[in-house]
Amino acid sequence: MFKEIDIPQRTIMTPGPVEAHPKVLRAMSHTILGQFDPAFLSIMDEVKEMIKAPFGTTNEQAFAIDGTSRSGIEAAMIALIEPGDKVLIPAYGRFAYLLAEIAERAQADIVMLEKDWETPFDQQEVIEKIKEVQPKIVAMVHGETANAQIQEMEKIGAYCRQNDVLFLVDMVATYGGVEIKVDEWNIDIAIAGSQKCVSVPSGLSLITFNKRAQAIIESRYQKELGLSKVERNERFIQSNYLDLSQLINYWNNNRINHHTEATSMIYGIHTGLRVLLEEGLDRVYARHTLNNKAIVAGVKAMGLGIYGNEDTKIPTVTPILVPEGIDANGVKDFLLEQFGVEIAGSFGDLQGKIWRIGNMGYSSRRENVLQVLGALEAALIYFGAPIQVGKAVKAALDVYQANHKN
Amino acid sequence: MFKEIDIPQRTIMTPGPVEAHPKVLRAMSHTILGQFDPAFLSIMDEVKEMIKAPFGTTNEQAFAIDGTSRSGIEAAMIALIEPGDKVLIPAYGRFAYLLAEIAERAQADIVMLEKDWETPFDQQEVIEKIKEVQPKIVAMVHGETANAQIQEMEKIGAYCRQNDVLFLVDMVATYGGVEIKVDEWNIDIAIAGSQKCVSVPSGLSLITFNKRAQAIIESRYQKELGLSKVERNERFIQSNYLDLSQLINYWNNNRINHHTEATSMIYGIHTGLRVLLEEGLDRVYARHTLNNKAIVAGVKAMGLGIYGNEDTKIPTVTPILVPEGIDANGVKDFLLEQFGVEIAGSFGDLQGKIWRIGNMGYSSRRENVLQVLGALEAALIYFGAPIQVGKAVKAALDVYQANHKN
Repeated sequence: MFKEIDIPQRTIMTPGPVEAHPKVLRAMSHTILGQFDPAFLSIMDEVKEMIKAPFGTTNEQAFAIDGTSRSGIEAAMIALIEPGDKVLIPAYGRFAYLLAEIAERAQADIVMLEKDWETPFDQQEVIEKIKEVQPKIVAMVHGETANAQIQEMEKIGAYCRQNDVLFLVDMVATYGGVEIKVDEWNIDIAIAGSQKCVSVPSGLSLITFNKRAQAIIESRYQKELGLSKVERNERFIQSNYLDLSQLINYWNNNRINHHTEATSMIYGIHTGLRVLLEEGLDRVYARHTLNNKAIVAGVKAMGLGIYGNEDTKIPTVTPILVPEGIDANGVKDFLLEQFGVEIAGSFGDLQGKIWRIGNMGYSSRRENVLQVLGALEAALIYFGAPIQVGKAVKAALDVYQANHKN
Repeated sequence: MFKEIDIPQRTIMTPGPVEAHPKVLRAMSHTILGQFDPAFLSIMDEVKEMIKAPFGTTNEQAFAIDGTSRSGIEAAMIALIEPGDKVLIPAYGRFAYLLAEIAERAQADIVMLEKDWETPFDQQEVIEKIKEVQPKIVAMVHGETANAQIQEMEKIGAYCRQNDVLFLVDMVATYGGVEIKVDEWNIDIAIAGSQKCVSVPSGLSLITFNKRAQAIIESRYQKELGLSKVERNERFIQSNYLDLSQLINYWNNNRINHHTEATSMIYGIHTGLRVLLEEGLDRVYARHTLNNKAIVAGVKAMGLGIYGNEDTKIPTVTPILVPEGIDANGVKDFLLEQFGVEIAGSFGDLQGKIWRIGNMGYSSRRENVLQVLGALEAALIYFGAPIQVGKAVKAALDVYQANHKN
């Protein structure tokens, strides 16, 4: 026989999933409502509205997809890509390759623009490539979590719009933690997730798109075969589950049956977004900025190096160079086992070379920052790493103190 | 500003989503664990094991997919279908057309075997069609919720196995409520969902497949581009998010990074399955059978007709013919507004012609059965329908009483 789950308490300082807000967890324990119950539909309608502010958009279309972040990314990609379409993917980190993987499966004609992972692109470099390649779509990542760099967008977006190129951006790692301006940056379709700065468990993706993208999506609509045998479309989107043209009609007042909406996750995202908006987005971003500053100060005070260009580091992740001869996984596991503190390793070439401390959502709290720095210092002492002792937590406290005086 | 969600109490007697078990809701309010936290991995491992019993399988492969039921159906279909593959879909209800819709998007060569919706197929009829068509795959629905019929499987499965045809079955409406024998019926891949008889909110799909299906799936494996640039496969599955070949490697001990597992939903499904297994599957099925009998007795005692062949009616749904001149939606809405009791309408040709009372999972309780019958009678009196008054609840109580004496 299996026993009741028994969840140990953790301090989660990874780039996701992060600690869910207690109000979110309480909301998720509410009883179920039917998917077409008016009480539930009004919650869905409010979710649609609340999604928009952190995206910085007034798009009509904004809703959730019942899957993790990459389900939304895939839904966005396959909605725009038809077989043979040219897609340019500038890659400065791991998740650009997920865009490529999805584009490949959608039979796109893919052009990669690749570089090292230590900085994002100079925007002009991307624009030159767009001129050369003349793609239908440019697909990019706003913030890369594996190498912790953030990409400027506004010039690329402006060039795309002027030249009628579609601009798709994965904003999973920045949404709700860093200011985003989907409209101002001329992004046609943007994707986020629930499990990072919105402080909601993993399992929902958030999406918004403008009228340009919507026109393409709607031109590919077909009504589900179980509901109509006549409304067919030769240019159908290749997935039913992730078909944005059908999802529009499920989330709008037509309420055409598609999947059965994930009730409790919707309670969760409603609450996570509400808590975010109540704190005020400016204050939310300032909190992430301050905690980022404290983490960086603490890490440096220990004498540890930070991977990549610090000027373009994403505020929601800090990548720390593992000192030579130190077992990266050993330290990570030790932190979890002894302190109940979780930090992350990384992917690909960076595996074993960096640790990553996240700074996202409800986990982005002063006490968590101080705890992770103290625990990391203690673990590194235990592992015999040559660090400066007794300085990290003090450095972080100094950051908070200086901020308090301002 | 948006307000805290305020969830009214409902008695949900639809074919899903149904009332989540209170223990499930409590489990879902536990704090988050990281996706590779050993404490979380052991919960995932237990979920894998618990999924198998209600499927009646000893398959090695059984896990959850982070999406609603149809995400699992699509994952199963696109894992087996390559462009041009011949797929036979015998349709005796609405959800067979979802299989067709998905097969179409996977570029299958589809052959439909269609009939009226009042009974399922005689198995021999399907076997004759298989002989004629010689498909690679037969895709069917075990229990259709829109018309409330259930299909016998064992002869079709045996014939498929003997002739090396793959047999895929959607068991969303029966899993956990009706006895299922995936192994004995020679089903190669079967799909269920969380939101019906497992009493967990919508948002997860459950899947199991045998070594025959696994061999095909693994032959199409490619490692995600962000993790390896060399392990490519020309026969890749058309979705990354729903790629079973990658999901195998995420759920097994390789733990190759894919999506970020939906933590709280996994807590929920662990609890829902555990509660089911603790009650004992035989007792669970007997409870559904008894409550079905009580619902049918009550409906008939009111003088209402039941749609379709009663001998092949699915025990988890009862389709009631709307009396002539009665506003089907009006009655349904009245039940929700006045009594907080939710029943369902139906789809396609049956829309406005039948109501459906569900009998699934935690909602399948005596007090719910008595409440829905009493409320329906009162609503029909209010709407002036010519029914037998004062008999429905008594008839249901008689069923329980007779069972008690046995």
